Order: sequence, then structure tokens, then C-alpha cells
Amino acid sequence: MSGLFIVIEGCEGAGKTTAVETVAQFFSSCGFSDDKIIRTREPGGTLIAEKIRAILKEDSKEQMDPKTELLLMYAARNQLIKSLIEPAIASGKVVIGDRHDLSSIAYQGAGRGIDRSLIDSIRNIVLGSFRPNLTLVLDLPPEIGLARAKKRGELDRFEKEDIAFFNRIRSSFLTEAQKDPEHLKVIDASKPLAEVKVCIENTLRSFICTAG
Amino acid sequence: MSGLFIVIEGCEGAGKTTAVETVAQFFSSCGFSDDKIIRTREPGGTLIAEKIRAILKEDSKEQMDPKTELLLMYAARNQLIKSLIEPAIASGKVVIGDRHDLSSIAYQGAGRGIDRSLIDSIRNIVLGSFRPNLTLVLDLPPEIGLARAKKRGELDRFEKEDIAFFNRIRSSFLTEAQKDPEHLKVIDASKPLAEVKVCIENTLRSFICTAG
Repeated sequence: MSGLFIVIEGCEGAGKTTAVETVAQFFSSCGFSDDKIIRTREPGGTLIAEKIRAILKEDSKEQMDPKTELLLMYAARNQLIKSLIEPAIASGKVVIGDRHDLSSIAYQGAGRGIDRSLIDSIRNIVLGSFRPNLTLVLDLPPEIGLARAKKRGELDRFEKEDIAFFNRIRSSFLTEAQKDPEHLKVIDASKPLAEVKVCIENTLRSFICTAG
Repeated sequence: MSGLFIVIEGCEGAGKTTAVETVAQFFSSCGFSDDKIIRTREPGGTLIAEKIRAILKEDSKEQMDPKTELLLMYAARNQLIKSLIEPAIASGKVVIGDRHDLSSIAYQGAGRGIDRSLIDSIRNIVLGSFRPNLTLVLDLPPEIGLARAKKRGELDRFEKEDIAFFNRIRSSFLTEAQKDPEHLKVIDASKPLAEVKVCIENTLRSFICTAG
């Protein structure tokens, strides 16, 4: 049996880490053993991709050009897909990703202002027709998410951007979700944690039934 | 006055470092002051690009996918162009590069076997119409070059490839040079150092005269 690739997307502080655990618990309760449930994150998730992540997150004296950022994101993504996601799916595992391709459309596209056609040509090179089976978009006002992210401690290069940047990103996530409602499900992440959890579980249940 | 971008290409041990110095001395003797002559290298040449270089050169327990390698090369190249080469040229400087775009066509294309059309789409995204004013291709049998590289010490991830890999690269360099003889000049790097130096100087002189 072929595996699954489930992705959690959303702005800073939307609760992606908790959502990854909720999805993992769901598949565990469905009978998947621990070694069949793989948690990963982007950028990162492999030795090489984590090194690329470090460059992307670090504040440097040198300004990183938006295209450099985009190419590094897709270099890390390509490595993760080839090294981890594809082999895991082929062996029937469930891979749960903290961010994936949609983040590049939102952050490098809507956020940094890189042309969508340019992003699409890199997506085409790296992804071809590869897509997650399901993406959960955790949606909440950026002010709330950023306040949560700040509580966690030191902000990275992305978290230091202004509120307009994150509003463009939120809006991009929602626009993309509207375009492909079958594979992209918006979850209201401003609700209390227990409610968000139930909402994720219901979405997964309905996805499994539909896919089933 | 607009500056110049002169590139030295060639396999391992072809004498690129020495050639960079020969080119620098040539422009110095033409009246360019030291601060108007910039030496750089690829991958690398800026804070961020050198961090990308470290990932590319390092031997990892994880196999790097060829497309990851290609994307990292162009991420570093994009950063170098935007951060260093374009501003330097705009202020009338001569930038001398140890490797550039042709190396990706040769190493990731002919060497790793990535489709040329795929490389061309990334080139198009990163370079647009940007090209060096002149590229000197140092040509010699890979056996000789690799023997020289080994003498320098520890081999990196690329230098550990087999001879067939380097033969494909040499052949790709020569093919590209044939396609654009106006901008790509082949230098026989198997000759004694003093002769190679004279050959480089003559090529530069002729280029300057032609460029007017």
C-alpha cells in the first residue's frame, strides 16, 4: 500500500507543531505503528536540508536576495522529497510535514514579491506533479500568531518581518486554499486548542473516508 | 564607465587560481587600481554564498541529489551576482571570477546528467541575459589536472568523482566554447606555466582591442 503525505501550513505561531502531533495521533489511532509515522519539517528534515535551513533562518550582515531565498527553499525541498518523503511514501508510511510548497508561494511569492510564473517554473523543475495528499492550512490573524511566536523566544529572519508581510502571506494561503478545496483545507486556528484539534481530526476523518 | 566580468573556467588542477592572478596583473598593468580589481570564486564569494559552498563541497553521510546540487549552485550564483558582481560592474570595476555559469552546464549537466533544458530554465530565472564579458576555458587532460589537485591535499566531494565524470566535463567545456567563440576562449593549460600566462595575456589584449 502506498503511503500518504499530509502537510500543515500556516503563519508563525499558528500551532503547526501541535497540529503535526494531532495528525500523528490520528494515524496512530487508525492503526499505523510508530515507525510508519514520519514527522518532518521544511525547510529541513534531512542532514543536508537542515544545513540549508540554517542559512535561510540566520540573520546575516549580508542581505539575502529573494531569488537566493527561493532557490535555497527549493534545494532543501528537493533534497527532502528525494531523500525522505518519496522513499517513505513508497514503503507505505505517513509523512507529516510542517510546511511544504505552499509556504514558498505565500512567503517568497506574496511575501517577497517574486513573480508567480518564476516560482511555478522552479516548482515544475523540483516537484513535477508531486503534491501532498492533503494540506491543512492553519489560519489566524498574524498579530495573534506573532505574539505567540515572540513568547517562544528569539525571532528568526522571517519572524522579524512587518505585519504587512504576514498579512500578504495569510491572504495567499487563503487564496490558494480556495483554488483547490479538495486538497487544501482551512482550519480556524484562532479557536481554543481543543477545538482546533477536533477540527483537524474531523478533516482527516472526512479525507480518509473520501479517499477510502 | 561600466566594468567587466572576466571568468576563468576549467577542470580541477587546470590552474584557475594562477590564471585569476594573471588576469588581475594584466588589468593592473592597464592602469586599474587595486580597489578596481575584484577577485571572486564560485560557488561562493559572499558571506551567504560561501556558506552554500561549504554544503556543496562537504562529504555528507546523505547523498546529495543532483537537482539539489544544481539549485544550491544557482542560489550561490544569484547571491554573488546581486551582492557583488552587478554593483562592482556598475561602478566600473573588473570582476575576475574563478568559475561561473559554464561550470554548471559542465558539472551538473554533462557530469551529473541533468537535462540541459532544465538547467536552461534555472539559468533563465537567475541570469536572464547576464553573461561574462569574456570566459577563459583552461583546457587539459583531466588525469593531469587531478594529479595536481591531489598534490594540494584532501579532495572534496567533486574531486572524488571518477575520470569518466571529468572527461564529460572537459568535453562539455570545449563544446560550449565552440558554440560561442567570441566570448569563450580555450587556453591550452597543459603547457608550461609561463606559456599559459602569455597565452592568457594575448587573449586579454586581443579582447580589449576588439571590445575597443
